[in-house]
Amino acid sequence: MRIDLFFTIPEVDPQAVQGSTALVIDVIRATSVIAEALANGARAVYPVLDTEEALRLANQLGRESTLLCGERRGLKIEGFDLGNSPREFLPEKVAQQSLVMTTTNGTRAFLAAAEADRVVSASLLNLSAAAAVAAQSDRVSIVCAGRQDRFSLDDALCGGLLVAALSDHRGGEVRLNDAARAAQELATSLTCDEGTLGATAAGRAVVEIGLGDDLPFVAQRDRHALAPEMHDRVIRLPT
Amino acid sequence: MRIDLFFTIPEVDPQAVQGSTALVIDVIRATSVIAEALANGARAVYPVLDTEEALRLANQLGRESTLLCGERRGLKIEGFDLGNSPREFLPEKVAQQSLVMTTTNGTRAFLAAAEADRVVSASLLNLSAAAAVAAQSDRVSIVCAGRQDRFSLDDALCGGLLVAALSDHRGGEVRLNDAARAAQELATSLTCDEGTLGATAAGRAVVEIGLGDDLPFVAQRDRHALAPEMHDRVIRLPT
Repeated sequence: MRIDLFFTIPEVDPQAVQGSTALVIDVIRATSVIAEALANGARAVYPVLDTEEALRLANQLGRESTLLCGERRGLKIEGFDLGNSPREFLPEKVAQQSLVMTTTNGTRAFLAAAEADRVVSASLLNLSAAAAVAAQSDRVSIVCAGRQDRFSLDDALCGGLLVAALSDHRGGEVRLNDAARAAQELATSLTCDEGTLGATAAGRAVVEIGLGDDLPFVAQRDRHALAPEMHDRVIRLPT
Repeated sequence: MRIDLFFTIPEVDPQAVQGSTALVIDVIRATSVIAEALANGARAVYPVLDTEEALRLANQLGRESTLLCGERRGLKIEGFDLGNSPREFLPEKVAQQSLVMTTTNGTRAFLAAAEADRVVSASLLNLSAAAAVAAQSDRVSIVCAGRQDRFSLDDALCGGLLVAALSDHRGGEVRLNDAARAAQELATSLTCDEGTLGATAAGRAVVEIGLGDDLPFVAQRDRHALAPEMHDRVIRLPT
């Protein structure tokens, strides 16, 4: 198995992505939200780039069964139904709803991975399930959303845990690019827990806006055994 | 001391660079060449972006005391005097010469750091000397040249060793961005030797073009106790 990991969206190599299974990571917080929302009964998540596209799509899908979700600078967009805190995405709110979601980094990461054979949403909440799906492929690309096109340690650690899980699936028979190798090392030497997440730039930003309780939440390993997949720009649980 | 490390050139934050001492790293091989060439008596290194600019500048400086140096895809540019293998930069070739140097990633890294208060060329060959200069500043930025704007493990490891050295200088009183934290961890868990360098993408590329002997050369720690600095786009030893 060949594994190419990219720490930031501009680094994504389209040639590496094509023909691979892509794992998209935005631990703080988009892909954590996606896992939680779909586990709690949401029908689908539509990642979009901006507020205007979100409103247009929500109207098109039918406003009565659609929730507008997303953040700017971490906080809920004005007029939207939900922000980007996974703790908001409770069954009573999201069950049977379609979620139109715009986030700063996560949405762009999904779009960067769109040319892959399969595009899977990965987070600590659904780490093993996402790895199990990717383990079926001989080529895996791991796209870290990063933070404003810069390296983000939370995504790198989740990426490293995925590399380690894939390596286990393949009995160590993996070829890693430099970033995958580095991420695997990082995940070995740093514990990916609430404390580590809280010391990252993304983690500090979440704490600063009063949403620090999101960190122990997104740090939960394998809370859900599900691997959301994107087809035609819609993320759903496989049927 | 605040330390901001950037794994790739597009990630460089101009605001973090301004007012800092910048350490520029291209282990394989530009900053290794710079350390070796200046240690062997070269008067100055002029990093330029392309062949045309190199020829123009060499004519301007006077061709009799100027060497044209640089690589494309790792090999010496046709018609140039030297390539980008540090082993070529012998005293009998470079002493008293000005070197006009164009490399794929290294030159762009110096230009990205140009707004810093001081810009120091760093490599494994001059690691401790470069760290000692940066330790005088309260703000340090570390610019890894990377490889075609992607993460490169050799530069990341050298960056991590610099973070560790700076932290030692300051008794651990350092504030690190996510990438600096990650680099420091990597440098702790991976030994930065010939074997590790040979497993990187840049290292494999050098081996593939028959220049594998460059790897043990650039892996030498503190071969030179000098810290080349760039002023007005010219890199020299401090007087």
